[in-house]
Amino acid sequence: MKKIRAAICGASGYTGRELLLRLLRHQGVEVVGLAHGPSSEDCSMPDLFPEFKTLCELPVLGVETLYSQDLDAVFLALPHGASAPIAKEFLARGVRVIDFSADYRLRDTEVYEKWYKVAHCDKENLKKAVYGLCEWYRDEIKNAPVVAVPGCYVTSALIPLIPLLHDGVIEPNDIIIDSKSGISGAGKKLTPQVHYCESAESFKAYGMFSHRHTPEIDQELTKFAGANVNVTFTPHLLPIIRGILSTIYVKLKDGRSPSDIQSSWDKAYKDEFFMRVRKSGTSVEIRHIVNSNFCDMSYTAGPGRVIITSALDNLVKGASGAALQNFNIMFGFPETEGLI
Amino acid sequence: MKKIRAAICGASGYTGRELLLRLLRHQGVEVVGLAHGPSSEDCSMPDLFPEFKTLCELPVLGVETLYSQDLDAVFLALPHGASAPIAKEFLARGVRVIDFSADYRLRDTEVYEKWYKVAHCDKENLKKAVYGLCEWYRDEIKNAPVVAVPGCYVTSALIPLIPLLHDGVIEPNDIIIDSKSGISGAGKKLTPQVHYCESAESFKAYGMFSHRHTPEIDQELTKFAGANVNVTFTPHLLPIIRGILSTIYVKLKDGRSPSDIQSSWDKAYKDEFFMRVRKSGTSVEIRHIVNSNFCDMSYTAGPGRVIITSALDNLVKGASGAALQNFNIMFGFPETEGLI
Amino acid sequence: MKKIRAAICGASGYTGRELLLRLLRHQGVEVVGLAHGPSSEDCSMPDLFPEFKTLCELPVLGVETLYSQDLDAVFLALPHGASAPIAKEFLARGVRVIDFSADYRLRDTEVYEKWYKVAHCDKENLKKAVYGLCEWYRDEIKNAPVVAVPGCYVTSALIPLIPLLHDGVIEPNDIIIDSKSGISGAGKKLTPQVHYCESAESFKAYGMFSHRHTPEIDQELTKFAGANVNVTFTPHLLPIIRGILSTIYVKLKDGRSPSDIQSSWDKAYKDEFFMRVRKSGTSVEIRHIVNSNFCDMSYTAGPGRVIITSALDNLVKGASGAALQNFNIMFGFPETEGLI
Amino acid sequence: MKKIRAAICGASGYTGRELLLRLLRHQGVEVVGLAHGPSSEDCSMPDLFPEFKTLCELPVLGVETLYSQDLDAVFLALPHGASAPIAKEFLARGVRVIDFSADYRLRDTEVYEKWYKVAHCDKENLKKAVYGLCEWYRDEIKNAPVVAVPGCYVTSALIPLIPLLHDGVIEPNDIIIDSKSGISGAGKKLTPQVHYCESAESFKAYGMFSHRHTPEIDQELTKFAGANVNVTFTPHLLPIIRGILSTIYVKLKDGRSPSDIQSSWDKAYKDEFFMRVRKSGTSVEIRHIVNSNFCDMSYTAGPGRVIITSALDNLVKGASGAALQNFNIMFGFPETEGLI
Repeated sequence: MKKIRAAICGASGYTGRELLLRLLRHQGVEVVGLAHGPSSEDCSMPDLFPEFKTLCELPVLGVETLYSQDLDAVFLALPHGASAPIAKEFLARGVRVIDFSADYRLRDTEVYEKWYKVAHCDKENLKKAVYGLCEWYRDEIKNAPVVAVPGCYVTSALIPLIPLLHDGVIEPNDIIIDSKSGISGAGKKLTPQVHYCESAESFKAYGMFSHRHTPEIDQELTKFAGANVNVTFTPHLLPIIRGILSTIYVKLKDGRSPSDIQSSWDKAYKDEFFMRVRKSGTSVEIRHIVNSNFCDMSYTAGPGRVIITSALDNLVKGASGAALQNFNIMFGFPETEGLI
Repeated sequence: MKKIRAAICGASGYTGRELLLRLLRHQGVEVVGLAHGPSSEDCSMPDLFPEFKTLCELPVLGVETLYSQDLDAVFLALPHGASAPIAKEFLARGVRVIDFSADYRLRDTEVYEKWYKVAHCDKENLKKAVYGLCEWYRDEIKNAPVVAVPGCYVTSALIPLIPLLHDGVIEPNDIIIDSKSGISGAGKKLTPQVHYCESAESFKAYGMFSHRHTPEIDQELTKFAGANVNVTFTPHLLPIIRGILSTIYVKLKDGRSPSDIQSSWDKAYKDEFFMRVRKSGTSVEIRHIVNSNFCDMSYTAGPGRVIITSALDNLVKGASGAALQNFNIMFGFPETEGLI
Repeated sequence: MKKIRAAICGASGYTGRELLLRLLRHQGVEVVGLAHGPSSEDCSMPDLFPEFKTLCELPVLGVETLYSQDLDAVFLALPHGASAPIAKEFLARGVRVIDFSADYRLRDTEVYEKWYKVAHCDKENLKKAVYGLCEWYRDEIKNAPVVAVPGCYVTSALIPLIPLLHDGVIEPNDIIIDSKSGISGAGKKLTPQVHYCESAESFKAYGMFSHRHTPEIDQELTKFAGANVNVTFTPHLLPIIRGILSTIYVKLKDGRSPSDIQSSWDKAYKDEFFMRVRKSGTSVEIRHIVNSNFCDMSYTAGPGRVIITSALDNLVKGASGAALQNFNIMFGFPETEGLI
Repeated sequence: MKKIRAAICGASGYTGRELLLRLLRHQGVEVVGLAHGPSSEDCSMPDLFPEFKTLCELPVLGVETLYSQDLDAVFLALPHGASAPIAKEFLARGVRVIDFSADYRLRDTEVYEKWYKVAHCDKENLKKAVYGLCEWYRDEIKNAPVVAVPGCYVTSALIPLIPLLHDGVIEPNDIIIDSKSGISGAGKKLTPQVHYCESAESFKAYGMFSHRHTPEIDQELTKFAGANVNVTFTPHLLPIIRGILSTIYVKLKDGRSPSDIQSSWDKAYKDEFFMRVRKSGTSVEIRHIVNSNFCDMSYTAGPGRVIITSALDNLVKGASGAALQNFNIMFGFPETEGLI
């Protein structure tokens, strides 16, 4: 069978690395090119990540070297603002785009421009973009020219909350999401907070009421709740390389009981391979999902509130794994291909 | 000047170790004896903790060896249930007791017995016990025969919340405390969750709605609020040795503004050396308080809610440092003695 | 194509877990049974390792439940002493055995009994056992009834040293191996040294002149050197979950130059997928080989000595990956199957 | 009693931070000024290290602001090359200097210039400089105008080796020092190798045969051996914040027995508070010396060689603690002042 020809832009970052590792295991894809970010220099994958020596020694070149190639799909593991102009070029050439940035996530460009402080430069394609939360947009993804891979924190919030809001189990207006992420979420850029001596054996909250994943969470929850949702979202930085755990505080609607959470989740996810509903009261743990595309979730009910915990790997289900799952849907592969 | 003669029971645990390190720096105390927990064997401090070689080579013996000594004070770094019978013996001999366990914290023995599943065996002395939150019970501590050092999570919640409830700044009935603690909080006992390979590079919540620090938080907040307070409290296990950070979600009372939080804290803590009110919007971090007796706190206001973060070292301000601060108050030393 | 029917004994340990993860990716194998160690209780794989929920929900039963099954191969991820009696049973039933323990590694049972302090109970099969260092025993492995997967430290020493001794590049009698291993090397057993608070942010040597991997290193080096080799070997415990790095100090033989090291390695390993000879002077790093079956190596020459560094993942090339590579050779699969 | 007036240049680095913490505990010193490195901006200590809020809120200014102050002593926690010109200024003003850099360590400026690639700009004062290894240069330190605090790796090698070479117990020409250091040894500078995701859960050697501490080790060992010593020294980067452990491979001289090591150490160190000779065969561990000024050491004898391990905190006995111990000797304080 002819393999799908794919390329990665932004192969030099942590999500590019994770994606490539999984594409090398995928039976139906050929990686035909790698590109770096705008201001970087040409090199090879093992120069950037010595772990690819022998495994994949492709050069990592400027993105323009990919435009002339015969590609079926391109993964853009680029920062917001940098992604849209490049996506536009590929889309004009008929290459299907799987985008990791925020550029095609927010439907309302005013919201985008307010939170990201840049003008949106591809409003045309944005209209055709599909939000790549596979479990909820599968049908639209199949034929989408461009999918927007959801944010990592966002995914950890949406997966447990969408069914509950969709089914009217919880109040839409009293949701607190206390999220904790590993340091790879901050990327490879050298900032004081990623110095080992500043982050190991420490912990902090950041971006209180100002993290850019907030409007993305609100957009999707509002859509599925059929009512306006504005969450309180607080990200934290864990002294680990990868993984996100979100502790979510919700209130049941009048007349609802805790077991409705279980039913709602079961209904939504019983046939979803990567969704794992744990028994009520269980502690989901980051170590159970690291390096995998799974999202684990559990709830515990108590006086007046229910505590939900969800866990996923920010680099896999929160980025590269989700991207590959989207790709599998777009090109007709089993969703688990390359992801076990 | 004659030194105060003190002993430690439970010197073999992490809090005993921390306390001894600080007592060795204290100008006014002589450590005259160390005892281990009930089922341990006689040894010396460097046998248990080689870091004490040269520094303190005292034997660590059964607690009964301390009863006959001429002591002014004893620190009991023992588990709940084990502490009260021993405290009783020392109190009968006129030795002042600084107790780390829950045995003298909860005023209502029914609540104690419900949460700790053991009968309380010293109701007599419990009546005279003082809750050792130095910043709020200083006057009572001065002459107390026995003080109960507050729980570590509890302290991280009470310090920022007491002034706000006392001054009527926040609603007493909508408080969520999302706390994260280092692994030393689980003690030296060997359980699967403290294995390096199960805890490093991981993270989890535990004890949802069932952690024993909950009634202690409620008791003290209720007292200072003058109204019934029942918090939602979720502890988590951080892959670090020590430190607690609590993220606390509160709502302002009608007519109150975020700056009232600042004023309330300033009023309560401006002369308190170990209380550090950071600027609004600041990220308090565990690395700023590790190994110290400080508690850092900050708030950020947003739509509908205020997020408070507090950080302290669970082994210092959350245990041994607080114990020593109590001791300093009881025996007339400057509160910072041994704690800088 | 009919799949090879395989089982794992010792699925409850860290190496069992790693092996199963890789067998699930293998196109030509069916895992038909899992057994636990002797004193454990029946359960399921997700009970032991929640990360297997959905992925593999097989029960983990007593080893005797496997004897009656129709198996082609069995992996024994068991401790020394426990392995041989079980291997013997499987071999008697014509099942080929891949053994992780030391029981079939040392050819001389006197040496085995001296270092491991137990009598060897299967001297018969030991005669037919092949030492499973794939790159050097490939032909013998193909038809071996039982292979002994080499020790993790041992592999990190043998891979760089065998070619150099075989080709007479270095002195056989002045070799120092200073090895550092992650904590998973100590297994899941709860001992004080694996407590997070005793191992994180720390480091120590152990087993000086007494580690059981020493005679195994000597046996194999002696064989390939054609002269008696007795190394000085010091293991250390790194505060990481997995990975081994060995720093090896050797002396060139008279008339040999440092570039002979490069030539010797190139000759031995240029067609070996999992052997990666890095440029002289390079720092091999554990992060480059974690989760993979690669072994990286490099050398730096200086006055009087050459420093060699090698790195591999103790749970993969040092155990389960090597086991699977052996399996692939035994059953005619590409050596990389399940290992990318 | 009048306090000694001291200042720190380079308060913005990790060693400056550690020194200041200890000076605040010292009964006989007043910290009258703090200066930053050459290209930094004026700020306050809590701006750099929020942990100093309340504790020490001094401004951190340009070094020239210190020249006009009435100082008894200045600590220079500056990089090599930057230190000597500043030391010269202070020495001209009669201020005694405790220098952390390499500028006054190597007696031979040719060696200095070869290894450090800069011209030495203060050969005059270098002649009067004393090597600040307190246990071996105590008498010279008392009246030294300038002391050079030894390198961190160097100290971990010299402390166990000087007595053995001085007493002729071991061969001077076959010494291998395999050292492992925490990441704070690399300083606060942001480089890829200090990124949490590149260093956590990893390990590597670096600077093989080229680390600048090599000539310093050779200089001092040669002096005490009375014979030319050239060690093989390999540093490694541990995924921990602080601490050094060195594994040292030596050979006994003919006629010497392992117990001569014990006698030699006992003779040298029995009255030295910070030197802790552990029982032969003991594993010294970094956690036993972290945050302290102790150096632990032990040996294990085996066929043909002896393995010595030593451990110290690179920021304390390897830098700031040693600096303060020197200061105590220079100004007549007990050596332990501020260091318990």
